[in-house]
Amino acid sequence: MKKLIAGIDIGGTNTAFGLVDDAGTVHAEGIISTCKYIDFDIYLQALRDAINQLIDKAEESFELAGIGIGAPNGNYYTGCIEFAPNLPWVGVLPLVEKLSALVPNIPIVLTNDANAAAIGEMIYGDAKGMKNFAVITLGTGLGSGIVVNGEILYGHDGYAGELGHTIASINGRECGCGRCGCLETYASATGIKRTVYKLLADHAADSELKNISYNELSAEMICTAAINGDTIAREAFAHTGEHLGRALANLVAITSPEAIFLFGGLVKAGKYILEPTKKAMEENLLKFWQGKIKLLLSGLNEKNAAVLGAAALVSSETITSS
Amino acid sequence: MKKLIAGIDIGGTNTAFGLVDDAGTVHAEGIISTCKYIDFDIYLQALRDAINQLIDKAEESFELAGIGIGAPNGNYYTGCIEFAPNLPWVGVLPLVEKLSALVPNIPIVLTNDANAAAIGEMIYGDAKGMKNFAVITLGTGLGSGIVVNGEILYGHDGYAGELGHTIASINGRECGCGRCGCLETYASATGIKRTVYKLLADHAADSELKNISYNELSAEMICTAAINGDTIAREAFAHTGEHLGRALANLVAITSPEAIFLFGGLVKAGKYILEPTKKAMEENLLKFWQGKIKLLLSGLNEKNAAVLGAAALVSSETITSS
Repeated sequence: MKKLIAGIDIGGTNTAFGLVDDAGTVHAEGIISTCKYIDFDIYLQALRDAINQLIDKAEESFELAGIGIGAPNGNYYTGCIEFAPNLPWVGVLPLVEKLSALVPNIPIVLTNDANAAAIGEMIYGDAKGMKNFAVITLGTGLGSGIVVNGEILYGHDGYAGELGHTIASINGRECGCGRCGCLETYASATGIKRTVYKLLADHAADSELKNISYNELSAEMICTAAINGDTIAREAFAHTGEHLGRALANLVAITSPEAIFLFGGLVKAGKYILEPTKKAMEENLLKFWQGKIKLLLSGLNEKNAAVLGAAALVSSETITSS
Repeated sequence: MKKLIAGIDIGGTNTAFGLVDDAGTVHAEGIISTCKYIDFDIYLQALRDAINQLIDKAEESFELAGIGIGAPNGNYYTGCIEFAPNLPWVGVLPLVEKLSALVPNIPIVLTNDANAAAIGEMIYGDAKGMKNFAVITLGTGLGSGIVVNGEILYGHDGYAGELGHTIASINGRECGCGRCGCLETYASATGIKRTVYKLLADHAADSELKNISYNELSAEMICTAAINGDTIAREAFAHTGEHLGRALANLVAITSPEAIFLFGGLVKAGKYILEPTKKAMEENLLKFWQGKIKLLLSGLNEKNAAVLGAAALVSSETITSS
């Protein structure tokens, strides 16, 4: 019987999941709401039921060999989601323990969403064969999954890789973490929105973004405006890239990766995010690193990347066909 | 016959070396000039001769089981010293290859001085049993040896750990690397000298440091002045700690260590460097790290630390008594 792994990507709005084989093919996919479940236990039951339905509907019968989960603030060491600001449940959530009770005798592995993206890039994407690289996820916040010697850098407590909360600007923008000037207040979907509003305040140039309220404005709209030639949108990407590139140069100084992959919604802007980021990174690198660090867009199909990454968490050994 | 390892610490002025057993006892020590040897080959011959003399003079006869070397810009992967700004020889120096020709059939391992300090702390110092920590060397420059999962973080090319060349202040002080605002222009023996001169320019307070020229002023004098109550010297340490602590908070966000050890000349100032650094680090940490990251002074006798660290580079397996 063929063995498949369930990859689960828990986001603030929705939870996406899929059944993945060891070649990285997603055989079936599903989605449930995250935010409508106020009770964590009821959410987990709904998730278990939805995965079971996917298995029942599958074309051929197979065995579930493991479950890999990427979640904001997911801790690999403890198996808990700990104090995630964008999820409906507060405090420490013993996800692996509770899901194991619902789906017994199946290995379950949890990590944060950026680490899952890095593992996905290493197993199924363009980081195949690389031992030292980083994946930067540019979503609502900025996450980073850092691979050192072929393994995720977890650090002492499982929380390493918080590049989004390094200080990009002393006494800078207020961050959701309660401090000021964090990188993700500049370089993320939320950060670029704030930059657009700053530019609209400072400059007189016309812009299609003047018709959109702060709450309506999405990173996708800013991408589209930049592609359409909107000067404010392009300038916003230039500012975003400047902050991001400078932070990436610091990341290189500390970890010396072979490559850095950009991933997530902002990446749809293509060269408008890549070029200013590369320029600022190069300007801030020590001479012997200049021109040597690959800055790339993620090689994974964005729709499936988070699910693939989560599935890749479970060792590929367990999914060899029997 | 007892087996010992030669630990060699190559500095810009002098090269210190010692014969070390697996308990970390230094059985004999020596020193030769680095800077007076313009020719790298002649320097290596002098070093070989000095070590041989040490062996000949030893109380009991023993076997040389390996040579470990810490050097500025020493590359573990290539065995070369590459473009070290403070050494008398330019370009890429194939140190391991050339020394192997002079001392055949002995394992020789090279790394940079900060990594050697980190290995020394792990094997012989207060990081025993720790798997994730960093050692920050505050000397002429600022070096960092970062340990991840019990191994030095070398990165793709062997150059990881350049915390001293992360940007501490955008468009800040000129650095020897050709860029501006690097952390080591603020937090190092050279950095604090510059800060003293800035403070003497800005403030009217009297200070014993007003009698000393820039070239004469040493970090040790600033330490002594701070201990004696000199307000300019204490303020200089406060500024240094502010920059260093902020950078350490960024290092924690990326690598999440259990502890950070401070090492080198500036550490002689004790609480005058430790307290402001700890304060700034705590203020800039994400909440869940506050109060959890140990900031400590190195547990190694400073005189021997670099030699011990270099010796520890060679696997302790090879020095088991036979």
